[in-house]
Amino acid sequence: MSELPTRLEVEDLQRNLREVEDLLRRHKLVEGLVERQPMPRHELVEKLVHKQHLTELRAKLEKLHSADIASILEALPTIERLLVWDLVRAEREGEILLEVSDAVRESLIAAMDPKELVAAAETLEADEIADLAPDLPAQVVEDVIRALPQEEREQLRAALSYREGTVGALMDFDQVTVREDATLEAATRTLRGLDELPAHTDQLFVVDREGRFRGTLPLARLIVTDLERAVGEAVAPEVVTLHPDDLAEDAAKTFERYELISAPVVDHFGRLIGRLTVNAVVDHIRKSSAEAQLAESGLREEEDIFAPVLNSFKNRWTWLAINLVTAFIASRVIGAFEDSIEKLVALAALMPIVAGIGGNSGNQTITMIVRALALGQVQVNFLFKLLAKELGVATLNGVVWGTLLGVVAYVLYGNVALGGVLALAMLLTLLLAAAMGVTIPLIRARLGRDPAVGSSVLITACTDSGGFFIFLGLATLFLL
Amino acid sequence: MSELPTRLEVEDLQRNLREVEDLLRRHKLVEGLVERQPMPRHELVEKLVHKQHLTELRAKLEKLHSADIASILEALPTIERLLVWDLVRAEREGEILLEVSDAVRESLIAAMDPKELVAAAETLEADEIADLAPDLPAQVVEDVIRALPQEEREQLRAALSYREGTVGALMDFDQVTVREDATLEAATRTLRGLDELPAHTDQLFVVDREGRFRGTLPLARLIVTDLERAVGEAVAPEVVTLHPDDLAEDAAKTFERYELISAPVVDHFGRLIGRLTVNAVVDHIRKSSAEAQLAESGLREEEDIFAPVLNSFKNRWTWLAINLVTAFIASRVIGAFEDSIEKLVALAALMPIVAGIGGNSGNQTITMIVRALALGQVQVNFLFKLLAKELGVATLNGVVWGTLLGVVAYVLYGNVALGGVLALAMLLTLLLAAAMGVTIPLIRARLGRDPAVGSSVLITACTDSGGFFIFLGLATLFLL
Repeated sequence: MSELPTRLEVEDLQRNLREVEDLLRRHKLVEGLVERQPMPRHELVEKLVHKQHLTELRAKLEKLHSADIASILEALPTIERLLVWDLVRAEREGEILLEVSDAVRESLIAAMDPKELVAAAETLEADEIADLAPDLPAQVVEDVIRALPQEEREQLRAALSYREGTVGALMDFDQVTVREDATLEAATRTLRGLDELPAHTDQLFVVDREGRFRGTLPLARLIVTDLERAVGEAVAPEVVTLHPDDLAEDAAKTFERYELISAPVVDHFGRLIGRLTVNAVVDHIRKSSAEAQLAESGLREEEDIFAPVLNSFKNRWTWLAINLVTAFIASRVIGAFEDSIEKLVALAALMPIVAGIGGNSGNQTITMIVRALALGQVQVNFLFKLLAKELGVATLNGVVWGTLLGVVAYVLYGNVALGGVLALAMLLTLLLAAAMGVTIPLIRARLGRDPAVGSSVLITACTDSGGFFIFLGLATLFLL
Repeated sequence: MSELPTRLEVEDLQRNLREVEDLLRRHKLVEGLVERQPMPRHELVEKLVHKQHLTELRAKLEKLHSADIASILEALPTIERLLVWDLVRAEREGEILLEVSDAVRESLIAAMDPKELVAAAETLEADEIADLAPDLPAQVVEDVIRALPQEEREQLRAALSYREGTVGALMDFDQVTVREDATLEAATRTLRGLDELPAHTDQLFVVDREGRFRGTLPLARLIVTDLERAVGEAVAPEVVTLHPDDLAEDAAKTFERYELISAPVVDHFGRLIGRLTVNAVVDHIRKSSAEAQLAESGLREEEDIFAPVLNSFKNRWTWLAINLVTAFIASRVIGAFEDSIEKLVALAALMPIVAGIGGNSGNQTITMIVRALALGQVQVNFLFKLLAKELGVATLNGVVWGTLLGVVAYVLYGNVALGGVLALAMLLTLLLAAAMGVTIPLIRARLGRDPAVGSSVLITACTDSGGFFIFLGLATLFLL
């Protein structure tokens, strides 16, 4: 517990980070090191002139919580990061690797040799090793498996078999179980036999002779119930149970909805095989909301902010390429109207406004629908109502902003018809955006895709090409 | 507990929703009702012909958890929603109002008379009433305050005084306290005196004679420790304590980082005044991530998907207006080059590509920086490194995509110089986007603003106007 800060202060973290940086700089620890990567981190440290000063930095790190060291590592550029990493005690490396982001984890693992990796992994529990495994060399994973005691080896194998995004991949094996035919007295003795209860033990899991799950015994109930009674009499039989194949997202909603701390995970035979805790759920929620945010602007995954340029390029190029294609299509739509633009060059200046507002408005609709879909609020019965409402909003927007823009265009170019065409194009583009904003995510959901991914590119593609086509088409019809 | 589903099934929720809809439709409950709002919901039900069929629907609702009823209400259009709302038992209304989104809550409250609202609020605890208060008529809040017992009245006053987004606004008053000089035996007796422990009681809060916080006594420790010892001996003194004015976001990070279930909230005199629990933190995380998502596409708040058109318009117009201004500026930039476009109309077709890719790439940079800022990873010392990296990525992108586009433009228009200008403009726009993507969020953060809000509009404004200017400017210099 001595690592836990006693006051909440985010400034603490910033201060710790600054202190570490100061120590690095003051002692010129990084001076003279060539910035190349990967470099075995021992070499790095051996090249340092002022070895004696490392003690101070090491003492500082010693006092910090693993999660806080992880934050510091994230915020340091590569060389500084590896230097600090080398000063971390070997027993803590496993824990810290669990806390850092995937990208930073890769950079740390690349600097460790297989023996260190095996040692780091062995300090962890089976479910935690499974979390690290995808980033470890295959040989290291095998060595770790071999070194584990039988029970944990099976747990690790099981944990490795569950797909990412399922309850199985998030659960741990720290459940404390009691037999339903034991007395509460005996159950309490068992608990006292343990050094301390695993974190997040808010309830004990009650099983029968065959290991089948029978219900839970909340600690709070254990404390207030007469100890001579049997566990079976105090059990809370009606609890949410999870299967390892359940989606993590659904489990997270369940935790949120029913305000759970822990929940049993049972297999298809009703046997208790693990538990899911609220802290794993919180991690999942944070991670998936971060991923959604990153995906929206086309980053494949969380990026190490000091990643080499090529890594960043790889993380981002797909989206830019897709965007290039859609922009090119829009460009060809404009190309088809080059004659019209040549005759009335004002069209070139006005057309991006129509497409821009259309894209914006479409993104608003799509954001709302994607959220409603995720919350299970979109019912086929009421689809027409939903579409009608969005078209209504689009009409109102179209009339308000279309009129405004039409007037501005008239003032600028002294051409009433041009103003009228702009206003009408605006209205039609907003209607298109609303219709597409409702249907794109619904069609993607119907096809079994995640409606959130790529919706924004698709709608922008529609409103760009559509907006240019509508505006330039109307102009060609009515103005030339 | 009988309301809690025993298996996790999201399909359950969908099924419940479908059943409710079926009951509504089968009995033609909504038939003949004029769709106007707000309509006192009793009137609504009294107009129904088939009153006898309501029993079935009511029985169905009776069996559902409040959170599940809330979900159903969210997914129903206004008339159906109010009908179902009227069938909910009065004692459960308060709880359900807490669960629904702000927009839907407003629609439900609008249909209730003051007496009902007071009754609903009185079923809740002080911290929950405070959550509802902003949506209730002032008179209702006053009546509720008057009806409360002294202690709760003070709690409610305190809870109402904290700003949204602080720990004070999220905390509850359900902490179980024990005196440090009591024996564990006595503490256990106190617990048995309570009917059941409040939800999320993983630890007791230990105070001295003056009510000052001294540490916590985890239930797990209470169970495994000899009951004859004093509370003071078993206490865990080093725990994270929160102040009511701490930011909820910081508290959430602390819960995540140190994997807490509950934490004490103390005032400036060290007195224990409440506790924060992980479920309040999870709600906060979900809510703030939803808000960030909505804000990004310019929705002011979570929208009732069946909101009247005018409400939706109000929720969305600000962003569209801002976008209109930035689009107009970009349009004027193009307007300045109308002569050039008239001479070489291909420019009109190609210019949106430059601006589009620039905006996209800038959004990628800004998303990464905003996240890194939120996680406290951006250090002034390494700013130059960060900028250099982003400019490096932009250069690589510029060379790759610029060359590709330049070749395509050459093939399309048979004009080598045009291809070269397009490639160069692409490179420069991407560099501009990277520089702006790094500096905009940093400047906003330095000015004390939330760097996440509006970053996307600002970068798009820069890359649109900037991209058009760079491309058309270069074309005017070199091609005409």
